Amino acid sequence: MPKPKSPKAAEFGPEVRAVFADIKRTRNVAEVNNFWKYLARDPVLLARTWQGVKEVMAPGALDPLIKEMLYLAVSVTNGCGYCIASHTAAARKAGMTEAMFGELMAVVGMANETNRLANGYRVPIDAMFEA
Amino acid sequence: MPKPKSPKAAEFGPEVRAVFADIKRTRNVAEVNNFWKYLARDPVLLARTWQGVKEVMAPGALDPLIKEMLYLAVSVTNGCGYCIASHTAAARKAGMTEAMFGELMAVVGMANETNRLANGYRVPIDAMFEA
Amino acid sequence: MPKPKSPKAAEFGPEVRAVFADIKRTRNVAEVNNFWKYLARDPVLLARTWQGVKEVMAPGALDPLIKEMLYLAVSVTNGCGYCIASHTAAARKAGMTEAMFGELMAVVGMANETNRLANGYRVPIDAMFEA
Amino acid sequence: MPKPKSPKAAEFGPEVRAVFADIKRTRNVAEVNNFWKYLARDPVLLARTWQGVKEVMAPGALDPLIKEMLYLAVSVTNGCGYCIASHTAAARKAGMTEAMFGELMAVVGMANETNRLANGYRVPIDAMFEA
Amino acid sequence: MPKPKSPKAAEFGPEVRAVFADIKRTRNVAEVNNFWKYLARDPVLLARTWQGVKEVMAPGALDPLIKEMLYLAVSVTNGCGYCIASHTAAARKAGMTEAMFGELMAVVGMANETNRLANGYRVPIDAMFEA
Amino acid sequence: MPKPKSPKAAEFGPEVRAVFADIKRTRNVAEVNNFWKYLARDPVLLARTWQGVKEVMAPGALDPLIKEMLYLAVSVTNGCGYCIASHTAAARKAGMTEAMFGELMAVVGMANETNRLANGYRVPIDAMFEA
Repeated sequence: MPKPKSPKAAEFGPEVRAVFADIKRTRNVAEVNNFWKYLARDPVLLARTWQGVKEVMAPGALDPLIKEMLYLAVSVTNGCGYCIASHTAAARKAGMTEAMFGELMAVVGMANETNRLANGYRVPIDAMFEA
Repeated sequence: MPKPKSPKAAEFGPEVRAVFADIKRTRNVAEVNNFWKYLARDPVLLARTWQGVKEVMAPGALDPLIKEMLYLAVSVTNGCGYCIASHTAAARKAGMTEAMFGELMAVVGMANETNRLANGYRVPIDAMFEA
Repeated sequence: MPKPKSPKAAEFGPEVRAVFADIKRTRNVAEVNNFWKYLARDPVLLARTWQGVKEVMAPGALDPLIKEMLYLAVSVTNGCGYCIASHTAAARKAGMTEAMFGELMAVVGMANETNRLANGYRVPIDAMFEA
Repeated sequence: MPKPKSPKAAEFGPEVRAVFADIKRTRNVAEVNNFWKYLARDPVLLARTWQGVKEVMAPGALDPLIKEMLYLAVSVTNGCGYCIASHTAAARKAGMTEAMFGELMAVVGMANETNRLANGYRVPIDAMFEA
Repeated sequence: MPKPKSPKAAEFGPEVRAVFADIKRTRNVAEVNNFWKYLARDPVLLARTWQGVKEVMAPGALDPLIKEMLYLAVSVTNGCGYCIASHTAAARKAGMTEAMFGELMAVVGMANETNRLANGYRVPIDAMFEA
Repeated sequence: MPKPKSPKAAEFGPEVRAVFADIKRTRNVAEVNNFWKYLARDPVLLARTWQGVKEVMAPGALDPLIKEMLYLAVSVTNGCGYCIASHTAAARKAGMTEAMFGELMAVVGMANETNRLANGYRVPIDAMFEA
């Protein structure tokens, strides 16, 4: 019953190596981070998850910095330690300054507070928001 | 043991009326939405919450559109129905297009998925994220 | 594939009726609320849940009003609509005034905010809290 | 103000020792895991929790492997580190293979994603699910 | 600022119609449920989400009934009303009996309880779970 | 891309030092705990958060011990490790005994369980709770 382990590089099959190569090329990094190494235990999940993340985080109507900040806001709300560490780093790499981080955290904190005030006061949705 | 009710306008004291006037002026709206009417049961909480929201959502290193999208990302993650309705409206008013909404939702969905993959695979934080 | 339904009173077996009688006696109410009627689909779950709630909510080192307020704080945090409605009623019946409710909500809101600030700023636990 | 501590074996009273003996017998293990040692600070909570877990996890309409996987799915969703570690071990002991774990994680990840898509798109419940 | 709306069938483009046809064929249903109609506002998200759900929920090391029950366990934990309604229906269609549903709910309830007991008692992970 | 760090005391500007002085005076402590040191990266957030916490936690209709226990109940529900450690300490300092802690945890556990039972059984709110 061992703890889940990242497989050793030597154990990776060709599908995993292909995904890792695409991650490195897309992100221009020398090494993939632990998240992908651990998912490599399940090459199908690894490939689908990477494909999804790659599509979702590509520039579009929102630029990558905004997308990374949204990712971080969700991760902070859920309290996922790994995700907070990795997406804080990714957001900084994409251009998040200290001031932006401070404002992001202030919004996330306030939203988590007012979400509960709305719950507890049982506020009905205004007709104008339902139209 | 009645359900919490929004007080009638006639019952609002001067502190509540002052907060409502500031909300209308700041947001350039004719009427405050239900959230503030319900919080008016507790004028101290109303005043502190409005003051906080006003400061946090003002333009700064992040513009109001990005802040509204972060607020929405948190509200969707928490499943707060009122907050999703009101902050979707606020984000649209601040300029969120249909395409931006679609990308926001895609990021929020993906982040909620990968947060759990990181939890379940018990991925240790990379040294480079701890430095 | 019908929506879960509360069984009709006529359908309740003797174990369910015994639990309902104990709920009415313990709480001094004429009718059990919907939660118990729905759980009655599974008499074993009903009996175990009622036994647990009865023990946990009995007066002890904490009085019933404090216990009801703790229950409400959890329910508001989780966003459980039924639980917020029923435990707001129960807390009022146990003596929660409007001012107490306002302060409870202020604490719940603030705790949900600072929980995320602690997550996002990745604050390490002080040695004095680990001793 | 010390951190909660597991009491030393020598300090356990007879009620605690009786529960521990039943845990060892029921699970056929030589030692109880930390969860139960920490709960032993409150013998009444310990006894009620063990009784509930024992009943709920016993073979029934669902076999123990499925129950352990459901337990793990909840723990991963909530991000409870201790619970993920202990119930991954328990599920493996009950027969969860690496392939089953991979599929479980894929379902948990997808459910957490689509739960938020349903929230954010404010999807109304189909009449056929309400019938 | 209207509430998100499901597009009318007549407005669906060919990519959306292709996804809907695949959903109907795969699930052997006459009509897609609201979730997919609402996602159709964003055809790329619709296609990726359906492809993911189709792969993840296909028979594998776990059969579809177990997968639907895991999906339901997550949805109940997160309190997603739409998801609870639709996946309760899906699990019943896949063979979940009333007794199975009762046991699933008992496990989900217990796991949510003990997750918090482990948090609050700050239980350290046993060495045997880390090995 | 370094991990967020608490600024060194020597780096604190006058606004931060003023807040720290008020925390020490209000709580009668020799040193502020890490939470405040980390928030000091953003002096505006620090000042607003401290002002809010100071107001919310002051004696009122609820005494400080009850407020600390509510804070702890929320933190345990959210699984915030830092917050559980710091508010367990604060609640003990405010007078929470071991027996009170045990009962608090029992209520928090039970509420988290029954919140999910209410979700999964889709229990409609009783008319008496809506009146």
